[in-house]
Amino acid sequence: MTRFLVKDRHTQYSPAQRSLLVMQILLRAKFNENAIKMGIRRLLNDRTYIACYPLHEGNYEKNMSDGKMTDRRLLFLEWARPCKWFKKQPLWLIRRYFGNKIGLYFCWLGFYTTMLLAPAVVGALCFAYGLATINSSDNIPSKEICDENGPGKVTLCPLCDKACKYQSLSDSCVFAKLTYLFDNPATVFFAIFMSFWATTFLALWKRKQSVVRWEWDLGGAWTESQTEETRPEFEDSARHFRINPVTREKEPYLPTWEKAARFTVSGSAVLFMVAIVLSAVLSTITYRISMVSVIYGGTGLFIQEHAKLFTTMTAATINLFILMTLTKVYAVIAIYLTNIENPRTQTEYEFSYTSKIFCFEFLNCYSSLIYIAFFKGRFYDYPGDDKARESSIRKLKSDICDPAGCLSELCIQLAIVMIGKQFFCNFVELGGPLFLNWWRQRSHRLKTKDPSRTHMAWEQDYHLRDIGRLALFDEYLKMILQFGFITLFVAAFPLAPLFALLNNIAEIRLDAFKIVTQCRRPLAERVGDIGAWYGILKGITYAAVVSNVSIYFKSLERDTQGFVIAYTSDFIPQMVYKYVYSPDNTLTGYIYYSLSWFNTSDYKEDWGADDNEVDPEVCAYRGYRYPPDHPDPYGLSPQYWHVFAARLAFVVVFEHIVFGLTGLMTLFIPEMPSELKTQIERENLLAKEALYEQEHGRKTISPDNKGLLYQNSSSDMVPVKP
Amino acid sequence: MTRFLVKDRHTQYSPAQRSLLVMQILLRAKFNENAIKMGIRRLLNDRTYIACYPLHEGNYEKNMSDGKMTDRRLLFLEWARPCKWFKKQPLWLIRRYFGNKIGLYFCWLGFYTTMLLAPAVVGALCFAYGLATINSSDNIPSKEICDENGPGKVTLCPLCDKACKYQSLSDSCVFAKLTYLFDNPATVFFAIFMSFWATTFLALWKRKQSVVRWEWDLGGAWTESQTEETRPEFEDSARHFRINPVTREKEPYLPTWEKAARFTVSGSAVLFMVAIVLSAVLSTITYRISMVSVIYGGTGLFIQEHAKLFTTMTAATINLFILMTLTKVYAVIAIYLTNIENPRTQTEYEFSYTSKIFCFEFLNCYSSLIYIAFFKGRFYDYPGDDKARESSIRKLKSDICDPAGCLSELCIQLAIVMIGKQFFCNFVELGGPLFLNWWRQRSHRLKTKDPSRTHMAWEQDYHLRDIGRLALFDEYLKMILQFGFITLFVAAFPLAPLFALLNNIAEIRLDAFKIVTQCRRPLAERVGDIGAWYGILKGITYAAVVSNVSIYFKSLERDTQGFVIAYTSDFIPQMVYKYVYSPDNTLTGYIYYSLSWFNTSDYKEDWGADDNEVDPEVCAYRGYRYPPDHPDPYGLSPQYWHVFAARLAFVVVFEHIVFGLTGLMTLFIPEMPSELKTQIERENLLAKEALYEQEHGRKTISPDNKGLLYQNSSSDMVPVKP
Repeated sequence: MTRFLVKDRHTQYSPAQRSLLVMQILLRAKFNENAIKMGIRRLLNDRTYIACYPLHEGNYEKNMSDGKMTDRRLLFLEWARPCKWFKKQPLWLIRRYFGNKIGLYFCWLGFYTTMLLAPAVVGALCFAYGLATINSSDNIPSKEICDENGPGKVTLCPLCDKACKYQSLSDSCVFAKLTYLFDNPATVFFAIFMSFWATTFLALWKRKQSVVRWEWDLGGAWTESQTEETRPEFEDSARHFRINPVTREKEPYLPTWEKAARFTVSGSAVLFMVAIVLSAVLSTITYRISMVSVIYGGTGLFIQEHAKLFTTMTAATINLFILMTLTKVYAVIAIYLTNIENPRTQTEYEFSYTSKIFCFEFLNCYSSLIYIAFFKGRFYDYPGDDKARESSIRKLKSDICDPAGCLSELCIQLAIVMIGKQFFCNFVELGGPLFLNWWRQRSHRLKTKDPSRTHMAWEQDYHLRDIGRLALFDEYLKMILQFGFITLFVAAFPLAPLFALLNNIAEIRLDAFKIVTQCRRPLAERVGDIGAWYGILKGITYAAVVSNVSIYFKSLERDTQGFVIAYTSDFIPQMVYKYVYSPDNTLTGYIYYSLSWFNTSDYKEDWGADDNEVDPEVCAYRGYRYPPDHPDPYGLSPQYWHVFAARLAFVVVFEHIVFGLTGLMTLFIPEMPSELKTQIERENLLAKEALYEQEHGRKTISPDNKGLLYQNSSSDMVPVKP
Repeated sequence: MTRFLVKDRHTQYSPAQRSLLVMQILLRAKFNENAIKMGIRRLLNDRTYIACYPLHEGNYEKNMSDGKMTDRRLLFLEWARPCKWFKKQPLWLIRRYFGNKIGLYFCWLGFYTTMLLAPAVVGALCFAYGLATINSSDNIPSKEICDENGPGKVTLCPLCDKACKYQSLSDSCVFAKLTYLFDNPATVFFAIFMSFWATTFLALWKRKQSVVRWEWDLGGAWTESQTEETRPEFEDSARHFRINPVTREKEPYLPTWEKAARFTVSGSAVLFMVAIVLSAVLSTITYRISMVSVIYGGTGLFIQEHAKLFTTMTAATINLFILMTLTKVYAVIAIYLTNIENPRTQTEYEFSYTSKIFCFEFLNCYSSLIYIAFFKGRFYDYPGDDKARESSIRKLKSDICDPAGCLSELCIQLAIVMIGKQFFCNFVELGGPLFLNWWRQRSHRLKTKDPSRTHMAWEQDYHLRDIGRLALFDEYLKMILQFGFITLFVAAFPLAPLFALLNNIAEIRLDAFKIVTQCRRPLAERVGDIGAWYGILKGITYAAVVSNVSIYFKSLERDTQGFVIAYTSDFIPQMVYKYVYSPDNTLTGYIYYSLSWFNTSDYKEDWGADDNEVDPEVCAYRGYRYPPDHPDPYGLSPQYWHVFAARLAFVVVFEHIVFGLTGLMTLFIPEMPSELKTQIERENLLAKEALYEQEHGRKTISPDNKGLLYQNSSSDMVPVKP
């Protein structure tokens, strides 16, 4: 049954009834494409129709009148309910009901979630190792910091000028121990593990995808040879025509100068949005710097005691809030910009949209993390360095990590942004449609004259949310950003994969619930793979190796900063100390070794600690610099260069080993399981034989070609007699 | 005309006549494959026949009797003569006469030679830059070395114990200047240039290949879908059978345990050959070490003066000789080992052979270069270091580069091995067949009873050399090893690409002459691309980036060695000195800065210089170590770590930039020129239309499928009426 209802403002029907177009469509996407091309999408675009969608198969809440279950009801019962979270997804049913594209998304999501099990367990074990060894004898640096009669009594230079106080090293004892939980020797192993995991994940997904392609018949000439149609919107707007070199027919096109102009407009808009993101990050940094002064200037003892935790957490929350707002704003802008660019085909449209959204979201999600991981405190020299106070931009030079170290700050930021984003997203994703659908239904009921009339299926579906053609992009994007969180910054927060796993288990059922009950049935589409996302995942995997090693590099650079602690993650300096400088090859004495001394009389006016404080003769800061009485006071000491060289060597060795081994690994994981390969070869052979038989039966085969049909199969060299 | 002559020892024919099999074959390889499969190759293998080849098209020395030119004559005149070296190759004719596989080889070789033009010119310019600036004011280090009143009067510690003399720094003046020719600031640029060139070469070859594939019709379903036949040798030897999962027919196979056993045998033979190569390299090193002592102990003044040059050059020549001998031996062994492995198909056979030959030849050609480039002198500490003399293996620790530096030694080694190998190979390649063919013809004439009888075409061809199925592998291998020479070690010898270019221009015509006049006509084969070689080229390109940067790293590590000079290549230490330590940001004073001092009274017994020499109080050696009166005498100084860190930073930055940029570059060079893409799409469309028309004309098309034929072309959405 197919109905076309033309929009007409003067009939007595309700608004929903008046302007509906309901089509019962077959699941063959291509057929629909053609049908739509012939007019419907164009009519939708000029708002002659307001909707066009395939109908759902009945109500999901009860069986059909004859007691049979519809696919939708079955999907709801077996897949979309949270209580089924532990069950395998019925992918064949999802595919049958929603089409290949959505089936493939859930297949990928399920595979990704299963693969997350390994890093979740290993990450939790790393955390557990930290928990178990926090008080062990291996954790010498923490012990020395907490030793109030030993290194712990060292006086540290103040964290900020005029507002902060001198502290003793042992004040940071609790922080040092807490940081150790996330940042212990096992984390180095975990970072390497994650690089291998990410590569394995990609290789195994390729295998899995090739199996799915075969089972669902997605590959072959179908996807490869098709020439894509022009978007009706493009055809509408085109003013220029040319002869297509392939079909030799007239077609609309955009001249290069117009393309360039449109691209310039949308490109500068993207740059503008990027600038907004970066300035948001900058303002968060400024907030953090000023908060420290404010808190130390105040009197609240509780806040003062937890100042660093407080500022970091509020800054991260503000950051999360800005991030979520910008995402919502940008999602609208990106579609608008893509429409300005006006790409010719749907693929180009989706590519343009994807690249815009990805570039922006990448910066939006990661820029504050990247700043903390790679830049924060990098430019700080030593307490009395007068270059740091000259201008307001240079003030950023004095943005140093809190005593718990950059890694712990990164950890807090990552945890809040990632978990907060997931929670908020899931809430909006589920709550949004629920509320909107309720609201639409309600307003519809109010306008209907005859409330007793039962709603038709197409009316009921009209109240549901239109899922749109780009909906899956948002889902993929969310998952890929999560993949970035857990691979790029895993060195900072080993529990991230665990949280991702928990989120994804919920995500699958939430998405399922949403798509089965709260959305109109989407148009079935046929795709061969997950598209551009595979390339993006690959890029992130490369970046993850560089990032992990660089985070180590950076977290170890901290010793050029003014402030101390988090010694525990100083893997390389500790190794250098242990095997080069230490008299007994243990970490005993490492704390003293890694401190440098500052003469408080070298503080210029307005610098130094709070006026109420009594200046000690010297205070300590983290770094390998000469003492004040050296001919080159505060100059970099040989140890600095030694540690620096060791770190660079770590980068070189780690990167070459990981890239080399992952490269080898991908060489040795074949893209297709061997059984599948045999199966496909067998099918090709049978197809060839069938073709031969058919041609043969028709007696249309020419004598010259007879031999060629069998030439590729070694089974039978003598041509079959007619 | 096809003749089969069965071998029969009792007829009155000459040996050649008796056992010839001559086939006039079509150029369609597949047809031949089947014909051969049906018996001929098997008969060849059990030596029932002794030869089987397609005939040449008449004599290349004169036109046919009707005055027409055969393809062979045309090829000889226009392609195979040295005087045509500047001409484009007539690839279409080569392909028509010899088939696709050989045509593709010459296409690749021509392309590679053309691409070599750029690095040859740039390399020559680098050399010219060195020549021009050798006496300029930028070349401060050379100047300071030659300044006999300045740093040049410094006394250097002796090069070897008991036999060598103290020298002054200015003695090495000429060497320092000569080295500067090959190793000046332009070389750093050249090394980076070569990394980009290699990547561009690969990307452009892919484009070129896609054009050739289309023009020659090599791509498509033909190459992809064929199941390869089993080798007759394999079928002969097989004792086990199984059901093939694809064809469901009985086929011979090797059980896994037998495969493993055969692989173990051949694998250990390969390892044994590798051990022989490595021991050859070791013996060359030992030769060099003992030669130095012998020469210094002797009296010949001329040899003594040029001792380093003399030892390096003789060592390289010995190395070349061993290398060439081992290559010849191994070529025989590799075929024998591959036969032991007994792979199932020809592709597997060729892969097994290629990997064996490549592994071996890689080590054989490059191991001495790799030793000099990355290991030589790495383990040397300082003149009085007593760890260096303990055992004979540790003696290798004292194998340090001659005063002209490791890079100059690498340059000499590379020049001799590469140019010598090329010259020798070309000589053998051309001279071998010429002599053998002459010899066969002569012995044949002697045995023939009736000398006046004119030789048939198949007899004349029988006197020529059998080119064999693996001949092209040797040609590719030679070129790929040359590619390795010029990319992996280009930092040492900027003129290498120029010599490679000259060699290849000669190589093309030599190969052409050989294949047209001195070899039997090869069986035409059809291939889609250059096969495994592309992957190997890609691997070499990656290795080249790492290698070039590491050579720099190593050439700069030389300052931990005992002996001096070649300051000119110390790019990084010079930069560090220039911008950190130098008072006026020039290289003035760099020589003093890079020297360390050794107190000659610290020499143990039997060490130090020749007994006739008067020990000065201190002698200088290259390195950043503390002076003898420091609390930690001969310990590494801060400068050492500083320079070391700067070098590692260079490695990290250089590698990331080059890999990043080359990665981006390959993304932006499409694999196919856009015109070709349009052309292929057009052809596909026409083919589809033709198929539709044909099916349509026959009226066998079912109504359901009608629309599908046009679904992919956007040209016509309304199905054509019958």
